[in-house]
Amino acid sequence: MEPVWRYLIEWILTPYEAHMHGIRRVLYSGKTRYQQVDVVETYSFGKCLFLDGKLQSSEYDEYVYHEALVHPAMMTHPDPRRVLVIGGGEGATIREVLRYPSVERVVMVDLDKEVVDVCRRYMPEWSRGAFEDPRVELVIEEGRKFVRECGEEFDVVILDLTDPTPDSPSVYLYTREFYEMVKRRLGEEGVMVTQATSVRFSPKAFAMIRNTVAAVFPIARAYYTPVTSFLSLWGFVLGSLGRDPASINPDEIRSRLEKLTGELRYYDEVVHISMLHLPRYLRERLDEVREVATDENPAYMPP
Amino acid sequence: MEPVWRYLIEWILTPYEAHMHGIRRVLYSGKTRYQQVDVVETYSFGKCLFLDGKLQSSEYDEYVYHEALVHPAMMTHPDPRRVLVIGGGEGATIREVLRYPSVERVVMVDLDKEVVDVCRRYMPEWSRGAFEDPRVELVIEEGRKFVRECGEEFDVVILDLTDPTPDSPSVYLYTREFYEMVKRRLGEEGVMVTQATSVRFSPKAFAMIRNTVAAVFPIARAYYTPVTSFLSLWGFVLGSLGRDPASINPDEIRSRLEKLTGELRYYDEVVHISMLHLPRYLRERLDEVREVATDENPAYMPP
Amino acid sequence: MEPVWRYLIEWILTPYEAHMHGIRRVLYSGKTRYQQVDVVETYSFGKCLFLDGKLQSSEYDEYVYHEALVHPAMMTHPDPRRVLVIGGGEGATIREVLRYPSVERVVMVDLDKEVVDVCRRYMPEWSRGAFEDPRVELVIEEGRKFVRECGEEFDVVILDLTDPTPDSPSVYLYTREFYEMVKRRLGEEGVMVTQATSVRFSPKAFAMIRNTVAAVFPIARAYYTPVTSFLSLWGFVLGSLGRDPASINPDEIRSRLEKLTGELRYYDEVVHISMLHLPRYLRERLDEVREVATDENPAYMPP
Amino acid sequence: MEPVWRYLIEWILTPYEAHMHGIRRVLYSGKTRYQQVDVVETYSFGKCLFLDGKLQSSEYDEYVYHEALVHPAMMTHPDPRRVLVIGGGEGATIREVLRYPSVERVVMVDLDKEVVDVCRRYMPEWSRGAFEDPRVELVIEEGRKFVRECGEEFDVVILDLTDPTPDSPSVYLYTREFYEMVKRRLGEEGVMVTQATSVRFSPKAFAMIRNTVAAVFPIARAYYTPVTSFLSLWGFVLGSLGRDPASINPDEIRSRLEKLTGELRYYDEVVHISMLHLPRYLRERLDEVREVATDENPAYMPP
Repeated sequence: MEPVWRYLIEWILTPYEAHMHGIRRVLYSGKTRYQQVDVVETYSFGKCLFLDGKLQSSEYDEYVYHEALVHPAMMTHPDPRRVLVIGGGEGATIREVLRYPSVERVVMVDLDKEVVDVCRRYMPEWSRGAFEDPRVELVIEEGRKFVRECGEEFDVVILDLTDPTPDSPSVYLYTREFYEMVKRRLGEEGVMVTQATSVRFSPKAFAMIRNTVAAVFPIARAYYTPVTSFLSLWGFVLGSLGRDPASINPDEIRSRLEKLTGELRYYDEVVHISMLHLPRYLRERLDEVREVATDENPAYMPP
Repeated sequence: MEPVWRYLIEWILTPYEAHMHGIRRVLYSGKTRYQQVDVVETYSFGKCLFLDGKLQSSEYDEYVYHEALVHPAMMTHPDPRRVLVIGGGEGATIREVLRYPSVERVVMVDLDKEVVDVCRRYMPEWSRGAFEDPRVELVIEEGRKFVRECGEEFDVVILDLTDPTPDSPSVYLYTREFYEMVKRRLGEEGVMVTQATSVRFSPKAFAMIRNTVAAVFPIARAYYTPVTSFLSLWGFVLGSLGRDPASINPDEIRSRLEKLTGELRYYDEVVHISMLHLPRYLRERLDEVREVATDENPAYMPP
Repeated sequence: MEPVWRYLIEWILTPYEAHMHGIRRVLYSGKTRYQQVDVVETYSFGKCLFLDGKLQSSEYDEYVYHEALVHPAMMTHPDPRRVLVIGGGEGATIREVLRYPSVERVVMVDLDKEVVDVCRRYMPEWSRGAFEDPRVELVIEEGRKFVRECGEEFDVVILDLTDPTPDSPSVYLYTREFYEMVKRRLGEEGVMVTQATSVRFSPKAFAMIRNTVAAVFPIARAYYTPVTSFLSLWGFVLGSLGRDPASINPDEIRSRLEKLTGELRYYDEVVHISMLHLPRYLRERLDEVREVATDENPAYMPP
Repeated sequence: MEPVWRYLIEWILTPYEAHMHGIRRVLYSGKTRYQQVDVVETYSFGKCLFLDGKLQSSEYDEYVYHEALVHPAMMTHPDPRRVLVIGGGEGATIREVLRYPSVERVVMVDLDKEVVDVCRRYMPEWSRGAFEDPRVELVIEEGRKFVRECGEEFDVVILDLTDPTPDSPSVYLYTREFYEMVKRRLGEEGVMVTQATSVRFSPKAFAMIRNTVAAVFPIARAYYTPVTSFLSLWGFVLGSLGRDPASINPDEIRSRLEKLTGELRYYDEVVHISMLHLPRYLRERLDEVREVATDENPAYMPP
């Protein structure tokens, strides 16, 4: 057994709990204009991307997170052709989107070019060529600005953002004002999905995001999935102008899955239903929260 | 924010990864004849029981684990009246069993009287009076010996054991020989369920337990649920002489749940189906393993 | 190798550096009226006393600290008969004082009776019967109040206090006002010594204490010694109304040492000189600080 | 306060005790042919070099270690002109040697060219131009091989080696056979000094090295100094063919120090005496050990 001494310690509600990751190798460690970026090889989760000391995704289970983020929204739209992804610097979100033969155009907007470059160079297993796909346009810009100013229409908008921690600029990509901008960019039967923080560490933020999407979209669904490397059940919220993800026929999902490029490892028609079914303790926790996130009163992930 | 300095560090595949628990208060710390017992109040998971440094259950989510362990088996049996629980010193397993009005007799067999006493005294939130229920008989004995020697018949047998780590005596409560003894104690339509270690840390052990139950019982089902405080999806295996848990009518589950004493927080008819549905990556991982656990070649939880 | 999972993590200038102590056994863990008290058996330093998570003394090297605290002051006084100790709940400070055959009376004043009781019960190796010595009177009282109100005269006053961290009441036992009270209690050729925090973590506090003693006493000497379990060189300051510790004849020290009860393990006439000799880097660090600690502007140990 | 999440954890007698170093910046992290090299900026000790996870020297107190290693030997020789340094990749050992105006030639022999290059590039504060001094010759070679094969004569030989941990090749640079080779390279009044591991973690190794030097040299002296960043008192052993370091006149030291290039921060004539004076507890600990280290039975630093 090789000795271990380099660790990334992810503090959870500092300093009460932590996840210690033994580091086998440092692939990249540097500061971009926006954040500290570390790409390391851990013993337990393989290659990992940390931004400001917080695990963003791991070789071990990035597919759980990315499949859970992308496919419910794509399946909710009957025929997704134009997709906008905000964030998702690793390139795994667009990788999942590109599996759909119907997709003609993907615009990916990320603030931090250096993170995207580091991911392309040191974590090619995430994007697997997605950045080179001719359907993809990469835009380096602040996501809210892009949505506000772009005149284009999309079928699906996927918000793969960093968590709305108190100092983060992403706080304003989880508000009613922003979701209204997104809605204006959606075509008929358009669908939006956002990662919605941790069910465990920030149930209030998760609930507020759900409430906020529900205040803007006729149909809103909170769902969740366990992401082991995040130490938590992870939340997502989907808003739809057309179909309800909870009433899609499992046979439709099965049949569309068969036509995708490559094979999924996690998501399928049963997982689809499971994710949307919040057990009683989660429903109760969410229902305690009535607030809607606005630019004046945003949702924050503690601490 | 109160300063923290006392920690329980749960090493996962030592020393590559760890879960650091900040300790607010030590309620009990001592050595029994069999193991080191710590009952502590953590900041993140509330009161917790650690045996030999491994978290057994936490106030935060013990109900997820215990409901997932108990109810699928109880629901698989059409009319459970006599229940045997091996292990489960905290008293939460029998608490869940006692919710069923049909239950007439529960025998709980635990090796370590001191652990049971510590749990009754320092963790009454777990058992909530279950030990005082007149239907319960507590037997302090080695579980395998009890099963081998007792002449009684049970409807449901629940194995709430410590993990089969290399030095643990519980290794021999996960073998074909033992499951055959259990089977002989079951009545018609009898059901057995065992915790089956971590899907993440010990997928091989999980798979071997599934294979072993399948070698002994006509119907065997592996299922899983996320247990956040265990940092993992947790595995269970159910063996049945009668019904298949995967084909129970959701309406039956709903209607039986309504008649239970108290309300569940996690398990319901949709959760029942979700737990039994292993996603593709899990099915693949399990299907790689062909071995059956025997007394000669047991399943071990690494390391 | 026994597995380790219980740790006391001493944060040094939280959270930038820490000393992790693996715990073999918890002997006592509880909260007194004033502080959190943990007596534990560590793997590296044997039995240890922690107050509010900070190591106070360890079986491994408590004698280094206590001999360094007590003997330079006792040797500086030509004939110490009446000794006052403030703090020192472990009983090791009075143990060292009682070695001198000339000592007739020792008053030990400690604020926290419960700590003294815990030490007597769980750490008898420290006091080795000192509390039972008929020359000792134990007074449970706030030290500054005792010094202000007592009418008694002492030859040597030893301040074995907790560090002056920002919230600690001991802050006011490191000020000019307090040292003036102490001086009034001293007889001719009287000597006072105080622990003076870490040379490494709080050089400013060490320097201020030195300046403060120098503002009150005609002779003031800062000295230091490495205390391994404290991760630091440790500082002390001695104030004298009579002799200068730096000019005591080594032969006098040697000859007085021979008459002590029991044998010292660390202090001798060469150590006496070494401790008083601050190397250049220490002298420079101290000389940068000009401030004197007063009740209005006390010395604090960071953070 | 900037959040911290990257740590180097130095395990001391793994896993019983550790020193956690918060990392502000990773300057270099890579594997040479021989070892893992990390140059990091810590919060508490500034820039640090770690080899295989073990701190080699820190900006905070490298001068304490290097002055303690170099000057007692240089002062013991009456007129050091030719100096051999084995190890010392940081370049601080030769920096101290070059302060002596009498020095005409310094041969530095290090096994690992990549470490030397990393130190020159990322840690120029250590060598401060020493590698560029025309008196210095850098030889990349195994130290024992160099000493065995070189025909040159030296006045002082300084062994600045990594610790003799069980798998380390440096084990054979702490044996009688090796010291005899060194002795053959020394001129009249020649002096050899070696770092001699930790007084705390490996007192047996320290004692064996002392015994071994004493078996080869007419005069042998063990000495020590606290090195805070090493969490320990650190040991050294000096062997001399001529003068005894314990009987050098303090005035001679003082006067030679005045002629050195630059100013020392730690070593002076009083420190010289203090370092050579082992307190009783250390003498006792050393005197328990009778063994001499040989190629067949080397001294090891645990574990």
